[in-house]
Amino acid sequence: MTPPRRAEGLVVGVDVGGTKVLAAEVDDRARVLATATRSTPGRRVELGLLEGALTEAVEEVADGRPVAAVGLAAAGFVDRAGERVMFAPHLPWRGEAVRARLAERWGTTVVLDNDANCAARAEVAHGEAAGVPEAVVVTLGTGIGGAVVLGGRVHRGRNGMAGEFGHMQVVPDGLPCECGSRGCWEQYSSGNALARFARERIGRERTSLAALCGGVPERLVGPMVTEAAEQGDAVALQAFASVGDWLGVGIANLVAALDPDVVVVGGGVSSAGDLLLEPARAALTRSLVGASHRRVPPVRLARFGPEAGVVGAAVMAREGR
Amino acid sequence: MTPPRRAEGLVVGVDVGGTKVLAAEVDDRARVLATATRSTPGRRVELGLLEGALTEAVEEVADGRPVAAVGLAAAGFVDRAGERVMFAPHLPWRGEAVRARLAERWGTTVVLDNDANCAARAEVAHGEAAGVPEAVVVTLGTGIGGAVVLGGRVHRGRNGMAGEFGHMQVVPDGLPCECGSRGCWEQYSSGNALARFARERIGRERTSLAALCGGVPERLVGPMVTEAAEQGDAVALQAFASVGDWLGVGIANLVAALDPDVVVVGGGVSSAGDLLLEPARAALTRSLVGASHRRVPPVRLARFGPEAGVVGAAVMAREGR
Repeated sequence: MTPPRRAEGLVVGVDVGGTKVLAAEVDDRARVLATATRSTPGRRVELGLLEGALTEAVEEVADGRPVAAVGLAAAGFVDRAGERVMFAPHLPWRGEAVRARLAERWGTTVVLDNDANCAARAEVAHGEAAGVPEAVVVTLGTGIGGAVVLGGRVHRGRNGMAGEFGHMQVVPDGLPCECGSRGCWEQYSSGNALARFARERIGRERTSLAALCGGVPERLVGPMVTEAAEQGDAVALQAFASVGDWLGVGIANLVAALDPDVVVVGGGVSSAGDLLLEPARAALTRSLVGASHRRVPPVRLARFGPEAGVVGAAVMAREGR
Repeated sequence: MTPPRRAEGLVVGVDVGGTKVLAAEVDDRARVLATATRSTPGRRVELGLLEGALTEAVEEVADGRPVAAVGLAAAGFVDRAGERVMFAPHLPWRGEAVRARLAERWGTTVVLDNDANCAARAEVAHGEAAGVPEAVVVTLGTGIGGAVVLGGRVHRGRNGMAGEFGHMQVVPDGLPCECGSRGCWEQYSSGNALARFARERIGRERTSLAALCGGVPERLVGPMVTEAAEQGDAVALQAFASVGDWLGVGIANLVAALDPDVVVVGGGVSSAGDLLLEPARAALTRSLVGASHRRVPPVRLARFGPEAGVVGAAVMAREGR
């Protein structure tokens, strides 16, 4: 096996999400220097549409300059070798050899991993998991993604599917999940869980939460709950207390299994900061086995927000693996 | 750091359990050549009593020959450095620097780890986790112990407490656990869980289960349930179906997080073989996220039974770490 070659020059990270493609020029200090966005064409379209959108975004960022390497962070399962997107609920890729095809199309080095692993790579290289050997990174967005960092590297697993924390079962016969199971952790701790909690409790009173969704609970989404909580809305605060508590319970499970140095929480929901993390820390200390005989790991807010995916993809592209 | 020195000559593994001390001469092909046992003096005794019992057992095995190295498998939390037993529910050690003290007393190399990690080392070196980079080893005894194997080595964690799978919460506000929490996995899948299930359902009929406990449900313990199940007792079979199903649910959680190559199940309860593993495999396939997009890892019966601890302790002593 030849060692990976470190890319010099223009490195572009691309986050291929369910609704949006974000491409960014990222320097070797994790600074985002230029970005371009496209809408994700959807999962039922021809591959050419998606790959055309990616190409446009990369070309817009490159602006005529040669590209040394592109890192792709895909919202889906990527195989262990980093060659294929095996399955992605919101993208048309089904077992496609995405890496090689785009490398040929673009005439440059392309490196591929899933988005949660890329977010973790950003934290390992430049963020809150830097300098520690072992970390658990939990990414709270619509659902829960995550990564296990061991010896300073993201552990990918046999199928490249390690870190699928969101589908660990925490409630027997619990809430149904899109994955087909019931009681998955992300049904209790995620952006969707925040919104569901608030929707079920929103009353007729004129609260900031009611105002944000125009009085129509069905329109409520996670970011509205964050905004309302920051304004002191009681239901929104209860939603964070619940989602944060469940976050800590799930983290305690991961810490029992892995005993990491640090836990890093990122993703859109984490923008609420201590509203989310304080109840999580309390639940971790309450739930963790042997808490009085061990150092309970700190639960830190991720350094990188919505740009975690592109930064991590660029880190990966620069490292060549 | 000097590399560990491989021990040549007589190597003794010692399993320091809650009720029994087992010492064994183990050769480099994992064969147990001689054994000695002592009762564990209990947790409220002077340290000298326990360490005297260990010394006697090692001396009996050595039978006058010089000992090249001793490996200790302790039923408790061992610190990351492998120096101290931090806490052990059934032993008098509380933060004691056991390794160095016994090395001085015995005038030989002593290496220390917890019993579940030692059992995993046995499987990695000579058993069902040999030759694969990543494995999860689940040890079902009175409770659940376990180990995470990465890159062919047992992952010990920041506090040396990785692999405490038994205290991952699987039922919110579930059954109370000795650890102080509720709903821990080992309350639903372990020797204790087997016995509880059977105790709660044993009727007045003359079943083999009733005969084994002399008609007194309070006397039921896990091994009686195994024996009754092997005789076809309906309640005992139901107990294994339940404990096996919960085993698979918990394994699915670990596989979602770690995506290992193989899962190995050992410990006393595993002597029931497929009675336990078949329902576990079914639950794993049912519960595991993306099962149709991945290779579901095989769930294998451990090679080593009650001798897993001494064999693993000897492997560790021979490797010098």
